[in-house]
Amino acid sequence: MGALHDGHLSLMRQAAQENSDVFVSIYVNPTQFGVNEDLSSYPRTWDTDVAMLAELDRELAASDSGRISAIFAPTTKTMYPTLPPSSEVDGQGSFVLITPVGSVLEGASRPVFFRGVATVCMKLFNIVQPERAYFGQKDVQQTVVIRRMVQDFHLPMDIRIGVTRRELGGLAMSSRNVYLGARRRAVATVLSQALMRAEEQYHNGKRSRGDILWAANDIANSKMLEQDELPPSKRARFEVDYISLADPDSLEELEDVDETRGAILSGAIKMMPLEEPQDGEDCGLGGGTGTVRLIDNIILKPTK
Amino acid sequence: MGALHDGHLSLMRQAAQENSDVFVSIYVNPTQFGVNEDLSSYPRTWDTDVAMLAELDRELAASDSGRISAIFAPTTKTMYPTLPPSSEVDGQGSFVLITPVGSVLEGASRPVFFRGVATVCMKLFNIVQPERAYFGQKDVQQTVVIRRMVQDFHLPMDIRIGVTRRELGGLAMSSRNVYLGARRRAVATVLSQALMRAEEQYHNGKRSRGDILWAANDIANSKMLEQDELPPSKRARFEVDYISLADPDSLEELEDVDETRGAILSGAIKMMPLEEPQDGEDCGLGGGTGTVRLIDNIILKPTK
Repeated sequence: MGALHDGHLSLMRQAAQENSDVFVSIYVNPTQFGVNEDLSSYPRTWDTDVAMLAELDRELAASDSGRISAIFAPTTKTMYPTLPPSSEVDGQGSFVLITPVGSVLEGASRPVFFRGVATVCMKLFNIVQPERAYFGQKDVQQTVVIRRMVQDFHLPMDIRIGVTRRELGGLAMSSRNVYLGARRRAVATVLSQALMRAEEQYHNGKRSRGDILWAANDIANSKMLEQDELPPSKRARFEVDYISLADPDSLEELEDVDETRGAILSGAIKMMPLEEPQDGEDCGLGGGTGTVRLIDNIILKPTK
Repeated sequence: MGALHDGHLSLMRQAAQENSDVFVSIYVNPTQFGVNEDLSSYPRTWDTDVAMLAELDRELAASDSGRISAIFAPTTKTMYPTLPPSSEVDGQGSFVLITPVGSVLEGASRPVFFRGVATVCMKLFNIVQPERAYFGQKDVQQTVVIRRMVQDFHLPMDIRIGVTRRELGGLAMSSRNVYLGARRRAVATVLSQALMRAEEQYHNGKRSRGDILWAANDIANSKMLEQDELPPSKRARFEVDYISLADPDSLEELEDVDETRGAILSGAIKMMPLEEPQDGEDCGLGGGTGTVRLIDNIILKPTK
C-alpha cells in the first residue's frame, strides 16, 4: 500500500536474496477499508516511495542479489474492472472470503478488512504469477489468512514471512506511525512491552491463558493509569482493543498453549486524539486529531 | 461433475480441436449443493464415464486433434484441504463470491450454488492452470459468473462456451435427465418450446419484455392446463420457477432489449414427482419419486 518504511524495505531485501526479479506492488486497496475507516487519509507518498525503491535497487545492484524489476501501481479500474469496489459488509462484487480466520481479532474490529486483503492479493497473484510473495509478520493475521488462501485455492506459490521491524523503544514499524507524533509514539510502545512481558511468561514455562495474558494486561493497565494521572497537556490516552492468545493456524483463542503447536500472542490498541497540543510540539501528520489504531504480535514457538 | 452425456463429449471434442492436451475434471462438488438439495442422490457413474472418455480418446487419436491427457478426479480432502466443505449459506471456509450475477435467477433459487461453483472452479483453474476452460451454454448463468470471475481476478485464461446439446424434442441434455422417465421427459420439452417461441418474437422484431415473454408464458400455461386435465396416471405436472429476459453481462432483468447488447432468455421448471406410475412404465432413475429441476436458455444475439 506504499507509504514505505524500513519494514517494507527489509521484505524487499529478503525477496531479492531469494529471487532474481522482485516485483513491488503499490496500491491502496479500497475494499479493505470499512466505510468509516481511513481510506481517504491513508498516507500516500508516491514520490518518496519511488525514491526509496530506486535507492534500494542501487544497493541491490552492488550486491549479489536479485533486483527490483518492476513497480506495479495499478488503477482501481484495473483492479476492479467491472463493478466499483465496495466497502460495505453486504456489498456487491467479486470477493474472496477466508473464514473463520478472517473474522476473528482484526476481522472482528474490521469486518471487510480480510475480504479486501484476500481479494486484492488473489488478483495481484494472478497478475504477477510470482513464485514467492513476501508479507511482514507485523500483520500476523494477514499472513494466516493469505497462507490459508494459498492452501485452500491451491495457488502455485510460496508465502514468505519477514520479521517485524521495530523503532527504538520497540514500536512495530507501520505506515500509520507517521500520525502519532512524539508524545503518542512514546506511549504506544506499551503494546510491544505488554506482549514481550507475556512472552517472558511463556519462556518461563507458563502455559495457561491467565498466566500469560495477565502479564500483558498488567503492563497495559499500569500505563493507562499512569497516563490518566498526567495533565491533559502531557498525556497520551489509549484504549486496548484486544490482547489475544490464539492458535497459530485456526486463530481460535486458547485456554492453554499446546507446546507442540505454540501460539500467536497479539494485540491492538487505539491511541486516542492528542489532548491540548503544545506550541511547537511534534504532533505527527494530521496534527494529532485522529485516533491511531496499532497492532503488534509475537509468535510463541513450539517448544517440543 | 461426471454423469457424462453427449453435451460433455461435445465440449471435449471442441477442446481437443483447440488444444493439444485436454484435462477432464470429474468431481461432484459438495459446496454447490444446498443443504436440502440432491448432493447424495446426484448421479455418479464413474465406470461409464471412464469408458466414454476412453472411447472418445480413441476417436480423437484417429483424428488430427488433441487428446485427453488426464482425468482429474480429486477427493474432497484435496479440494477442501483445511475445513470440511460447507453448504450452509453462512458456512465457514474459503470461498469465492461473485455477486450480484451469482445471486439472481439460479442463485435466487439456490443461494450457495454459484459460491460453490466459483470456488471449485478457482481451485481447479489453479491446479490445472489451463489456457482455456470449456463450459456448456446450457448453464448460461454459470458461464456469466465464471467469465466475470476470470475478468475480475485477472485469471490468465480464456473461457470457451459450447452450444447446448439437445435430445429429440428439444430437451436440453443434462445429467439430471436420467431421473425423468418417459412421461416427464415428454412434458419437459415445454421449457425449450416456450423459450423458442419467445425467441421467435425477438426475431420477428419484438423488443419489449411483455411481447417476448408473453409467448413463452403462453406455451407454459397451455401445457400446464393440458396436464391438469389428464388423469393422474397419464399426466406429468410441473411448476415454472422463472422465465427471464436478462442483460447478457449483468443478468439484470430487462424491460426492453437493447439491440446492440442482445439478451439472455432463460427459464427453470420443476417436474413434479410422477403420479400413479403404471406397471412397466419407464419412470427414470429413482422411480419418478423426486422433483427434477430443469433449466434452459437461448441467447438473443445483438442485431446491430
